[in-house]
Amino acid sequence: MNKITTPSMSLHDLTANTIRGLTMDAVQKANIGHPGMPMGAADMATVLWSRFLKFNPEDPHWPNRDRFVLSAGHGSMLIYSLLYLTGYELPLDELKQFRQWGSQTPGHPESHLTPGVETTTGPLGQGISNAVGLALAEKWLAAHFNRPGYDIVDHHTYVIASDGDLMEGISHESCALAGHLGLGKLIVLYDDNHITIDGSTDLSYSDDVPKRFEAYGWFAQRADGHDPDAVEKALRAAVAETDRPSIIAFRTHIGFGSPNKQDTSSAHGEPLGDEEIRLTKENLGWPTEPLFYIPDQVLIYMRGAARAGAQRQAEWTELVAAYETTYPELAAAYRQSLSGELPDGWDEGLDQLFEPGKSIATRAASGAVLDLVSPRIPFLVGGSADLTGSNKTRPKNVKHLTRDDFSGRYIHFGIREHGMSSILNGMALHGGIRPYGGTFLVFSDYLRPTIRLACMMEIPVIYVFSHDSIGLGEDGPTHQPIEQWMGLRTIPRLLLFRPADAAETAVAWQVALENWTGPTALALTRQGLPILDRAKYASAQEGVKGAYVLSDVPDPQLILIGSGSEVHIALEAQELLAAEGVAARVVSMPSWELFETQPAAYRESVLPAAIPLRVSIEAGVTLGWERYVGPQGAMIGLDHYGASAPYKELYKNFGLTAENMAGTALDLVKKAA
Amino acid sequence: MNKITTPSMSLHDLTANTIRGLTMDAVQKANIGHPGMPMGAADMATVLWSRFLKFNPEDPHWPNRDRFVLSAGHGSMLIYSLLYLTGYELPLDELKQFRQWGSQTPGHPESHLTPGVETTTGPLGQGISNAVGLALAEKWLAAHFNRPGYDIVDHHTYVIASDGDLMEGISHESCALAGHLGLGKLIVLYDDNHITIDGSTDLSYSDDVPKRFEAYGWFAQRADGHDPDAVEKALRAAVAETDRPSIIAFRTHIGFGSPNKQDTSSAHGEPLGDEEIRLTKENLGWPTEPLFYIPDQVLIYMRGAARAGAQRQAEWTELVAAYETTYPELAAAYRQSLSGELPDGWDEGLDQLFEPGKSIATRAASGAVLDLVSPRIPFLVGGSADLTGSNKTRPKNVKHLTRDDFSGRYIHFGIREHGMSSILNGMALHGGIRPYGGTFLVFSDYLRPTIRLACMMEIPVIYVFSHDSIGLGEDGPTHQPIEQWMGLRTIPRLLLFRPADAAETAVAWQVALENWTGPTALALTRQGLPILDRAKYASAQEGVKGAYVLSDVPDPQLILIGSGSEVHIALEAQELLAAEGVAARVVSMPSWELFETQPAAYRESVLPAAIPLRVSIEAGVTLGWERYVGPQGAMIGLDHYGASAPYKELYKNFGLTAENMAGTALDLVKKAA
Repeated sequence: MNKITTPSMSLHDLTANTIRGLTMDAVQKANIGHPGMPMGAADMATVLWSRFLKFNPEDPHWPNRDRFVLSAGHGSMLIYSLLYLTGYELPLDELKQFRQWGSQTPGHPESHLTPGVETTTGPLGQGISNAVGLALAEKWLAAHFNRPGYDIVDHHTYVIASDGDLMEGISHESCALAGHLGLGKLIVLYDDNHITIDGSTDLSYSDDVPKRFEAYGWFAQRADGHDPDAVEKALRAAVAETDRPSIIAFRTHIGFGSPNKQDTSSAHGEPLGDEEIRLTKENLGWPTEPLFYIPDQVLIYMRGAARAGAQRQAEWTELVAAYETTYPELAAAYRQSLSGELPDGWDEGLDQLFEPGKSIATRAASGAVLDLVSPRIPFLVGGSADLTGSNKTRPKNVKHLTRDDFSGRYIHFGIREHGMSSILNGMALHGGIRPYGGTFLVFSDYLRPTIRLACMMEIPVIYVFSHDSIGLGEDGPTHQPIEQWMGLRTIPRLLLFRPADAAETAVAWQVALENWTGPTALALTRQGLPILDRAKYASAQEGVKGAYVLSDVPDPQLILIGSGSEVHIALEAQELLAAEGVAARVVSMPSWELFETQPAAYRESVLPAAIPLRVSIEAGVTLGWERYVGPQGAMIGLDHYGASAPYKELYKNFGLTAENMAGTALDLVKKAA
Repeated sequence: MNKITTPSMSLHDLTANTIRGLTMDAVQKANIGHPGMPMGAADMATVLWSRFLKFNPEDPHWPNRDRFVLSAGHGSMLIYSLLYLTGYELPLDELKQFRQWGSQTPGHPESHLTPGVETTTGPLGQGISNAVGLALAEKWLAAHFNRPGYDIVDHHTYVIASDGDLMEGISHESCALAGHLGLGKLIVLYDDNHITIDGSTDLSYSDDVPKRFEAYGWFAQRADGHDPDAVEKALRAAVAETDRPSIIAFRTHIGFGSPNKQDTSSAHGEPLGDEEIRLTKENLGWPTEPLFYIPDQVLIYMRGAARAGAQRQAEWTELVAAYETTYPELAAAYRQSLSGELPDGWDEGLDQLFEPGKSIATRAASGAVLDLVSPRIPFLVGGSADLTGSNKTRPKNVKHLTRDDFSGRYIHFGIREHGMSSILNGMALHGGIRPYGGTFLVFSDYLRPTIRLACMMEIPVIYVFSHDSIGLGEDGPTHQPIEQWMGLRTIPRLLLFRPADAAETAVAWQVALENWTGPTALALTRQGLPILDRAKYASAQEGVKGAYVLSDVPDPQLILIGSGSEVHIALEAQELLAAEGVAARVVSMPSWELFETQPAAYRESVLPAAIPLRVSIEAGVTLGWERYVGPQGAMIGLDHYGASAPYKELYKNFGLTAENMAGTALDLVKKAA
């Protein structure tokens, strides 16, 4: 590489243009990608990272770092450029491998892959909503752990968001809640470039964004996104505003600097082309060669910002050391909350919580579990999307948090399922909090995109989905999940647990809380279910294996398999069959995912190949049950929507009965004879 | 029933209190339900239905009726009361059977069940978004068919929406678009009662709703929702505003009249109880007996409003008759658009559209199909959630519509997948339009709740889901569908079609357009696929059966099954196996749902029990494929997320190759030998 003369321009311009150059070159080399956004946002990102952001590339997990979220994830070259320039463990060669197999620079940023990427973004609206969760977590931890002179939790959450992020409905849910809760350290830089994929935003978008956010109780500004001083001024004002979240609509130009593509949608999602890159670099006063050109001054400048961050971390470390001395118990609790482990003894008595014989809905059992464990896990923070009494998500004696008092541990998320779930993702990503949230199972559809991201990011969110079947009765088919269990089972890395009684519900929570590497969904009944007599049946603890022989007989001729409330139907059917001289084993199968991780020998012991006659029962779609019932088996389910009526009538009218199950089983036996 | 004296109060109050009484009694009789909302909204609903709404109970499908949407579907007793009082085919006995098996009065209103219910509501945010679709359809039809003096399409769409509707993100998406498009005949009555299930809205909600809607370009008012004159005045102003949609925040009191439960969340979702009902009726000056009391005057009053509507329909019918004479061609087109049938010859040449040998992405083939059929189906109206060029949803020579010019047939929905889908539902419900919309398949997750409702309502929406697998390559796992096909297959009544080449894509559109009783989803590739030589292989037309023998051999030893782009891998594997002396049949399976409706004999002919060795290939989760491969078969898929890289590398690295498929098949043959 020939030595070239550094262009004569300010350090700011040098840096912003470096980002533009890296972006153009990386996208061109990959021959696919999104150059326009990083080119347009380079100025505001440079100001943010060089003059505001508190970060230490040597310790990307420093708990008190500012969080930076690139909600407009398609502009991934922006963050990859910044991570390299500031010295994160992301070599320049990775930028040259943009979007290639095995690189750390995928098309959209992935938090589990690239140090310094706080959350996986790309599906629009998710990043800004995760950011609300990050800011909420910060405010919660600060309220719990800070003491006068010891602001050990004290950082901002910055977001760069696009038109698309703000058009998405989830942004309404999460940002309205952020306003309601007064998340004053959340600052959104809105990349107001007037361009979407289809063309001008005029085609589809005429929101007055600042006014909209003011209606949520935000502090809103407008500023020129290419004037570094204007950017700094607006950011200073946003930082100074501590009671309300801030949004700044920064007017920018997509593809900034490109003579023929700036301000056009063609700059959004395709390489500029070699010739246009040449013209753009010339227009920006940038060397056309070498590719991936980085002036030394820029590295010095940006790594200086990083060094300042390292210095701030050092000061913070000293502060925490003093805090440990002054507040040893609090400090221990703080460490515990960040440890990624549950406190010792958190589950004491959990397996003894429920007395057999009584009848209790599994949602109520779930509530009782929370009552027991919540005091022992002080960093367990959750809520519901306005179904607190239904979901039984609020432990007794737990206060809800308000904008003026974050000492509570319960969150009224409002009727915002999708936003709630994305906020939970942000809380989990922040660290220091173990988040959960509740809604009806049927509304798991509303938050499916966020579940997928939680799975991809391997973060430990817990979903409390009550009203898990037609067993909810009269609310009718709009509220009755039918396809939701199987739909959730299709999501890789999600753990779904549908307990059959209170004791299995305790196991479900145990599994969920001990699962730190991905989300867990609990499916819970509205209706009461008998607590099984475990003296008579196998221990509920066997549920940790996902499926187990609940009730066996000598030499079973067939196997009855059920999940959740339908397990009780299988047990009844077992007795009906016994009366007919047919020996049937009953298998409770609360979690397919857990069962499938068991050794083959265990799975064979539960569902032996030698017993091919099997009947499954689950009040939902049968698709997928072939896996366990096999070609000689039969499936009882609901391959259609439910209806509005008392639930016992629904079960009867839809054939989800012990009589039908026993009859189906008898038919199998006769056919096989 | 003893004759009782009608209480001395205005006709308005009599009517509103009748609604309150019917609501309290029906919910109490069912012993479950939501009395508070109808009691609070009774005044504004009475004003709307008695003084504004244009409807004819004798013809609930009159095309020019006003549409009334109860977005707060939990308040179903409000609409059931109104339907009975105005004389729809809903006997009083049905109200007494509220929420019972087989009644027409389910917990939440269902459009396919109850005459006068325009859309199925309950999942919050859906109704108001359907209403945007209804209003959009009206404006489109008016722009296309009205002529001076002949406003044959001219009606309003009224919505009663709750806090919950407005908190839901989908309301942001749909209402922002409604403002952008200037849907001036859309009028939302916001039931601003300050109460959600969890308690006061203060717990979670501090939006300035009028300001928020002004930011969308709406006309916003506030008024007292219990003062009939104030309600009328605000509605008159809303009707007078023709350029902008209107929202009126009507301050109401949930459970209005209940001495102990008004303004509390306990009025929301449970019966008041016999004693409180007695107290409430006394407080309202209402007879405590008989239950379900309806003064004759109320029936006379409300059926008078209905008669006025019938008169307006008669006038409209005359107008249309004159229109038929003056504009016979337009009138014919109008009739055609409302007929629920496709014009003759719409598919001429469709089966000859693609030449074998070339390579074309199925999304591009889909675009070519639209180019061909769009001019022939003038009421085919669609768009994309800001992925027009990617989804190939815009037929050539088709203009997009703008707020000032609705002559276009293409809609830029913006980055609003969920809203788009719910608007499509509304358009389909309106009649006169056959709607479709596009996005990436991975974002089908965003619109799943609306797909479910389309299925439940049996309405013919078409989803164009492009970028249907890891075949999209570099955009990476956030954009790569893995679990979406199987997830969609779990939704009862949804028809999913994943074509293997351009010719199957033409069949997919044929199937979709001829499916008038439910939605159809098309899964289309980003990457190019060879157009199969149908002289060599079976006709693509066989695709209408959902699965067919694409390539057969004498005495097949095994069957290779694939869908979409993976069919080509199966064909390659067939050749590799032939070279090894193994005879394999290849089955293309574009649609499970269609295949499952075929006669057993046909299914057996495609997948004979006598050939139990089967290998499936699909670049997604394998869960569910057991149905077709059986216990001796093998499944090739992706039970994990994808990665960012050129797609051919992804297929290779993930084992989605002909070599792997042939090897897997060979193993099966060896094992079985």
